[in-house]
Amino acid sequence: MRITILAGGVGGARFLRGLVHHLHPDAGPGPGHTPGTRDAAEITGITGVPEITVIGNTGDDITLFGLRVCPDLDTVMYTLGGGVHEAQGWGRSGETHAVQAELAAYGVEPQWFGLGDRDIATHVARTRWLGQGLTLSEVTSRLGERWGLPRQGVRLLPMTDEPVETHVVVEDADAEGGQRAMHFQEWWVRHQAALPAERFVVAGMDRARPAPGVLEAIRTADLVILPPSNPVVSIGIILTVPGVRDALRGTRAPVVGVSPVVGGRPVRGHADACLAALGLPTTTDAVAGLYADFLDGWLVDDADAGSGEDLSRRHRGLVVEHRPLLMTDVPAAAAIAGAAVDLGRRLQRA
Amino acid sequence: MRITILAGGVGGARFLRGLVHHLHPDAGPGPGHTPGTRDAAEITGITGVPEITVIGNTGDDITLFGLRVCPDLDTVMYTLGGGVHEAQGWGRSGETHAVQAELAAYGVEPQWFGLGDRDIATHVARTRWLGQGLTLSEVTSRLGERWGLPRQGVRLLPMTDEPVETHVVVEDADAEGGQRAMHFQEWWVRHQAALPAERFVVAGMDRARPAPGVLEAIRTADLVILPPSNPVVSIGIILTVPGVRDALRGTRAPVVGVSPVVGGRPVRGHADACLAALGLPTTTDAVAGLYADFLDGWLVDDADAGSGEDLSRRHRGLVVEHRPLLMTDVPAAAAIAGAAVDLGRRLQRA
Repeated sequence: MRITILAGGVGGARFLRGLVHHLHPDAGPGPGHTPGTRDAAEITGITGVPEITVIGNTGDDITLFGLRVCPDLDTVMYTLGGGVHEAQGWGRSGETHAVQAELAAYGVEPQWFGLGDRDIATHVARTRWLGQGLTLSEVTSRLGERWGLPRQGVRLLPMTDEPVETHVVVEDADAEGGQRAMHFQEWWVRHQAALPAERFVVAGMDRARPAPGVLEAIRTADLVILPPSNPVVSIGIILTVPGVRDALRGTRAPVVGVSPVVGGRPVRGHADACLAALGLPTTTDAVAGLYADFLDGWLVDDADAGSGEDLSRRHRGLVVEHRPLLMTDVPAAAAIAGAAVDLGRRLQRA
Repeated sequence: MRITILAGGVGGARFLRGLVHHLHPDAGPGPGHTPGTRDAAEITGITGVPEITVIGNTGDDITLFGLRVCPDLDTVMYTLGGGVHEAQGWGRSGETHAVQAELAAYGVEPQWFGLGDRDIATHVARTRWLGQGLTLSEVTSRLGERWGLPRQGVRLLPMTDEPVETHVVVEDADAEGGQRAMHFQEWWVRHQAALPAERFVVAGMDRARPAPGVLEAIRTADLVILPPSNPVVSIGIILTVPGVRDALRGTRAPVVGVSPVVGGRPVRGHADACLAALGLPTTTDAVAGLYADFLDGWLVDDADAGSGEDLSRRHRGLVVEHRPLLMTDVPAAAAIAGAAVDLGRRLQRA
């Protein structure tokens, strides 16, 4: 079964790790063979077409200190590769911060975005390869090899090879017109999404095309899953890549979403602040509404079980199911992924 | 007294530190105030013209992983700033190597050039500023501020703002014409100068001009010193920058050199292999011969005291003196620097 996932950062990455675990419970994570474990490739005999294609959000990308940083792609890689800082959800485990401390000593800005030494190496490699003329797709593939993504049957694609950057428009009485725009990361990391966002603008999207394989992966999938990623600034940005939304509307594969909102609160991150910018409440209904034109199945948490019937009524044909949605550990994430796959299978037959 | 120094890496840097110590024995090294010490600036009342101008070799410069590395400039900065790895002579103290280990895991080449994390931050900052359009002179000045060079009365100038790279031509039976060229660092670091060098070629020197202030610093100095740096690939490369050799010939300041060869062996590094490429033996006479057209004073080690008379005879007017030349610690380096300054003062009066 070919599964295509539209993923943001931590939520998408943890869901993906759960999905790989669900599909290949005996496979070890990460780049190398772990004693007593087997490769997904060994188990499934994967040779050509990857089993899972991940379309990663690149709207979060930012150039810091001349280095190209792709936070969402990296979080997916590190999480699948066993190199993520587990408690934090992003960045590298066993991280040190010598480089950034030195940059601060030199007075190099900005210092509000924390980059660890191991993480910086990823950005140095990426920037180097981009500078040599490789596309972001090619660079992402190279980086992913080190983290064992192909061995896990996972192909990670950036949503686009063109550099795009999500900017956030906020009110600013001192600025001309009463508003100013800042890079998404400055809003998210520096201001912790505390400045009310008026809207999101993706710089560069007018020139962007979907990366090679993106539309095909949606059109030819057996199942498309929207994991519990941020519906506005992660999946929402991917949906603005020309052709992606149409491909989702047109694919013969069922599209199953997993709610990133549980009991009226985002599972993680500042999705509430993002939904507010669209004038939407932080509810599973509101999120499903953003996907209404292509969504076939919708998994909500037990806490939101009551919203199911109303959702189905308003979005004709939408199948809503509820179960625990907190990805407290890998088995929990695997069970959620399994439920999404199971719902997709039933929708295929329907 | 305005002193101008042509410097390579470790030898030049240690001599310089000795010189600063000689001129201001109470001044602390490094960027900050060390309790109980005073700034050179406080002591001397330096306000405008720096006391010591260092013209640094940039032929060793190399771009690694997309980062611009200037080994000789950095060694001078780190040594004067109290941040050098003392035993090694170059690189940073307390260094870690997370970034390069990660780059190796990604398969990013080359791996034969060791870059520590703290050191990499210098290259990231430099590359960033160069990318913003600053000249290498401007970048070097910014980096040097952090290391307290202005406070020590030291102005560090790259020999040129144009990127130049020393390449080494070696025999290679498999190559067309029986020879091939490699970057100086590959020859020096990777091959430890063990491949016999046919000659040195400085790529980019045909387009190079001396950096702002370089010729003026030589012409208007009260004393020019050639520290015990490599006479071929450090000072020898600076001498090939258009105008530098003529400025040395024309300056009214005495030019005093300190022999980098002691008892027929280089004090440090592979100067013997470099001299061999020019068909020269590893002797103080051979080195002085390379400077013969502008050298006024020449300090040799006691071990080479016998060569003095012969040298003076052959290089008319050259004053040769001998003393211990091993820079075993800062006071020893300060004493050698003091002897060079003293010789220069006597030559001024002569």
